[in-house]
Amino acid sequence: MLGSMMQQPLLISTLLTHAERHHGEQEIVSRRVEGDVHRYTYRDLAARARKMANALAMLGIEHGDRVGTLAWNGYRHMELYYAVSGSGAVLHTINPRLHPDQVVWICDHAEDQVLCFDLTFLPLVEAIATRVKTIKHFVAMTDRAHMPASSKVPNLLCFEELIEAHRAEFDWPIFDENTASSLCYTSGTTGNPKGALYSHRSTVLHSYAIALPDAMNCSARDSILPVVPMFHVNAWGLPYAACMVGARLVFPGPWLDGKSLYELFEHERVTVSAGVPTVWQGLLAHVEANGLAFGTMRRTVIGGSACPPAMTRAFQERYDVQVLHAWGMTEMSPLGTVCTLKHKHLAMGAEERLALQAKQGRAVYGVDMKIVDAEGRELPRDGKASGELLVRGPWIIASYFNGEGGDPLVDGWFPTGDVATIDADGYMQITDRAKDLIKSGGEWIGSIDLENIAIAHPAVAMAACIAAKHPKWDERPLLVVMKKPGAELSKEELLKFFEGKIARWWTPDDVVFVDSIPLGATGKMQKNKLREMFKDYRLPTA
Amino acid sequence: MLGSMMQQPLLISTLLTHAERHHGEQEIVSRRVEGDVHRYTYRDLAARARKMANALAMLGIEHGDRVGTLAWNGYRHMELYYAVSGSGAVLHTINPRLHPDQVVWICDHAEDQVLCFDLTFLPLVEAIATRVKTIKHFVAMTDRAHMPASSKVPNLLCFEELIEAHRAEFDWPIFDENTASSLCYTSGTTGNPKGALYSHRSTVLHSYAIALPDAMNCSARDSILPVVPMFHVNAWGLPYAACMVGARLVFPGPWLDGKSLYELFEHERVTVSAGVPTVWQGLLAHVEANGLAFGTMRRTVIGGSACPPAMTRAFQERYDVQVLHAWGMTEMSPLGTVCTLKHKHLAMGAEERLALQAKQGRAVYGVDMKIVDAEGRELPRDGKASGELLVRGPWIIASYFNGEGGDPLVDGWFPTGDVATIDADGYMQITDRAKDLIKSGGEWIGSIDLENIAIAHPAVAMAACIAAKHPKWDERPLLVVMKKPGAELSKEELLKFFEGKIARWWTPDDVVFVDSIPLGATGKMQKNKLREMFKDYRLPTA
Repeated sequence: MLGSMMQQPLLISTLLTHAERHHGEQEIVSRRVEGDVHRYTYRDLAARARKMANALAMLGIEHGDRVGTLAWNGYRHMELYYAVSGSGAVLHTINPRLHPDQVVWICDHAEDQVLCFDLTFLPLVEAIATRVKTIKHFVAMTDRAHMPASSKVPNLLCFEELIEAHRAEFDWPIFDENTASSLCYTSGTTGNPKGALYSHRSTVLHSYAIALPDAMNCSARDSILPVVPMFHVNAWGLPYAACMVGARLVFPGPWLDGKSLYELFEHERVTVSAGVPTVWQGLLAHVEANGLAFGTMRRTVIGGSACPPAMTRAFQERYDVQVLHAWGMTEMSPLGTVCTLKHKHLAMGAEERLALQAKQGRAVYGVDMKIVDAEGRELPRDGKASGELLVRGPWIIASYFNGEGGDPLVDGWFPTGDVATIDADGYMQITDRAKDLIKSGGEWIGSIDLENIAIAHPAVAMAACIAAKHPKWDERPLLVVMKKPGAELSKEELLKFFEGKIARWWTPDDVVFVDSIPLGATGKMQKNKLREMFKDYRLPTA
Repeated sequence: MLGSMMQQPLLISTLLTHAERHHGEQEIVSRRVEGDVHRYTYRDLAARARKMANALAMLGIEHGDRVGTLAWNGYRHMELYYAVSGSGAVLHTINPRLHPDQVVWICDHAEDQVLCFDLTFLPLVEAIATRVKTIKHFVAMTDRAHMPASSKVPNLLCFEELIEAHRAEFDWPIFDENTASSLCYTSGTTGNPKGALYSHRSTVLHSYAIALPDAMNCSARDSILPVVPMFHVNAWGLPYAACMVGARLVFPGPWLDGKSLYELFEHERVTVSAGVPTVWQGLLAHVEANGLAFGTMRRTVIGGSACPPAMTRAFQERYDVQVLHAWGMTEMSPLGTVCTLKHKHLAMGAEERLALQAKQGRAVYGVDMKIVDAEGRELPRDGKASGELLVRGPWIIASYFNGEGGDPLVDGWFPTGDVATIDADGYMQITDRAKDLIKSGGEWIGSIDLENIAIAHPAVAMAACIAAKHPKWDERPLLVVMKKPGAELSKEELLKFFEGKIARWWTPDDVVFVDSIPLGATGKMQKNKLREMFKDYRLPTA
């Protein structure tokens, strides 16, 4: 017997309609590529998204067609989020930090029909325009006044002209909620990138989950600045959740350095932010160096890589900004876990709380997870046993776009490639990426623990721990360190800093100081590049 | 093109599984009918629900069968919530305050196969046991020691014996998320009660929505005491949302008087509650009379009837308990709106805030609403125009159980029978039930405004405003008032209290003092009974 409830598909367009009807006057603020600050409301967003939907139809975009973007966080990108998916087409957000060859490969693989881009990326688009196979229209996301006088891009269209040429009347079509809505490629550190093809259903369910009090806790009282890019797993879902709850949005555009972010936080009275640790390092350095404080910001979501406890401490104890340590993956829309406290933790002391917050946290409802041993047997949830983390749920992929890479699932679970523990309260902690583990004399050493210790040293700006070859132990940890500007630090001092903090045999065998550590397109340290750089490194202990 | 996400149906059983895996040690506290306080964890709940699922299968309950309950808020009722729906059967919660004839009618109409009941309701069950047509098994929700020595109920089974006789191993079945999960009859002030048949999908989506920060704001840090009964629209969904977020639960059993509730709030360090205004009147009277304060309670959801501003003021200004004024209906699972502030309201003064909180609030995402005139044309969202409120969304009924009453929808919208305004910020305010409006000389007078003024008078305990016949104006307002114990108040004093607070012609023509105002099974004032009582009342102005 079926229930007698209304059948309404969960569609992305209904998020926008809700925001327009119930939060029409709520503000969206954007720092633009053009240099100025733009302000408008959800009502304006909704009207312009409908105009753009009409424009896309005029350009020949049909149900299921892919529309690519190369764009920062801003209102025009947000309009495309709703215009494209709301029309039944698929929004393909492309990471502009990728190599042009990879961008060409991805555009061709996705069979993008249109490519919309911020002016920043004109050189990139010029480099790929004649190479991509399926793109029929290129759209510069600016107005006529800012259009390039000439460019190597054939038939370049102007975003604002497209908008102006169309009516704001458009009825969002109703279709199956399992219809594809957006496409995001993994960064592809091994092999070609693979696409995660989200659906309207998965996106709406994910929005409910991330807005919950124990996740990102989003409400109409918040002013949210997503630093995490809209080209990186849809800015962790915030452009959707913001419409769902009617939050004020502040977009930073291309200005992601510490000073620019800080000024925007303060000027726009931002209450919540979200981003990767490397961005916060720049922000904290700026705030620290200039003796500043946060006037309105009260919490920030930190994910993408493990958040070093030293960073959590700085935010919470020095600046009264609560850290929400989170974990997810492109294949998970992305949210899996957030580290928020339970009722029984409320009386915890600061140090105990910091230790708990080093964990990536609890699964939100909708995500189930387990850890397994090499034979796939579930390991105990005791906070000690560590094994590969498997996940499942309605916003986790069942396969990659176009079936690339075959069936990724193991008995219906998605293997994350992360190694983790889960404690009795359900708090998960990533101990390493499976491929980053260091195998020393048959025993595993986790690189993240060692990096967290190094980063807690006041002279260290960034630290990566990788396996170096060793004749006796097979592999031993090598610490690659970038010092803070002007800081003095010797290898011996840093190794001494590890004493008493970790089992003696985990101590790195050597330290190498470098001017910079390579970061990937999503701001993560590229340990594969470091491993390549140091593949013939001879440890002093060898 | 479809997305490539995992297909996992939204099933009620997954709420319980999530709670068991991620919040296994979280506590559920219940004051029992037997008199004592019972404590256990979500892990225990999950194991016992699986045992009960095995027991139900043994009793012959199949997919889609209805299982009735006559029970207070408590852990055994919670076990049935999950055992019955999780198995694919339908939980039919029956309001024990209904007349036995109505209970018989409802059980027959629902074709209940099993009836589980708290010992309190043994006399009621004895009165109906031989009259109901389809019930094969009666289960007393107690242990062997408390079973009645003899009863008029044939083959009475013992809940604890059923649990003990079965294994905790049970695999929750996977089925279509649109499968019926639970059944709740409206109070049926006119005609026979009609059933709202919820689905797994509607229940899970509703759970996400009510847990949001701008709705009931439920987290694993909360200790929630639902005063609203589990036999009344599933305690507004809290038994589901609590599992979703891992909140601590405190169940009051049958003890709903002010003193009992207050003691439980304090002893169990409750942080959040939810109930109808009449319950809070009892609680506030107790707290006031004894000079008490709330140690841990920080917010309470008030719905079911309009919350008088005087009550909001008392909770917030005197006791530092935030009032979440909410509105919904049995036909809506029930949540429609909650009155929480937006970013732009944060700087509001106390009086302005109170005025805003007199409104029932904003629609949560998932509910859309509009007001229409007599011809069905949408009225402006200006806070002034008032018209019938229509709603739609995935947890709103499309029809009643068994098609009773025909198609209730108007162009896909459910007509609520409430008359309301909606302002530009999306805040809805019920001005009256359509049938409670008073038509004076062709103009409408809203009864709720008049009641809110009366209830703000310190000597008034409860007030209902109804239409009385008038030879010239057709109808004029008659105020029926119950004074506080020992309070002195004359009709003239009370009418003077209206001066300046309302248009002069809205002032009631007369006041009648009564010893009590009849309350319905869900704690709402029964104005239809008052209208019947005063149908021949002769106004002094007539």
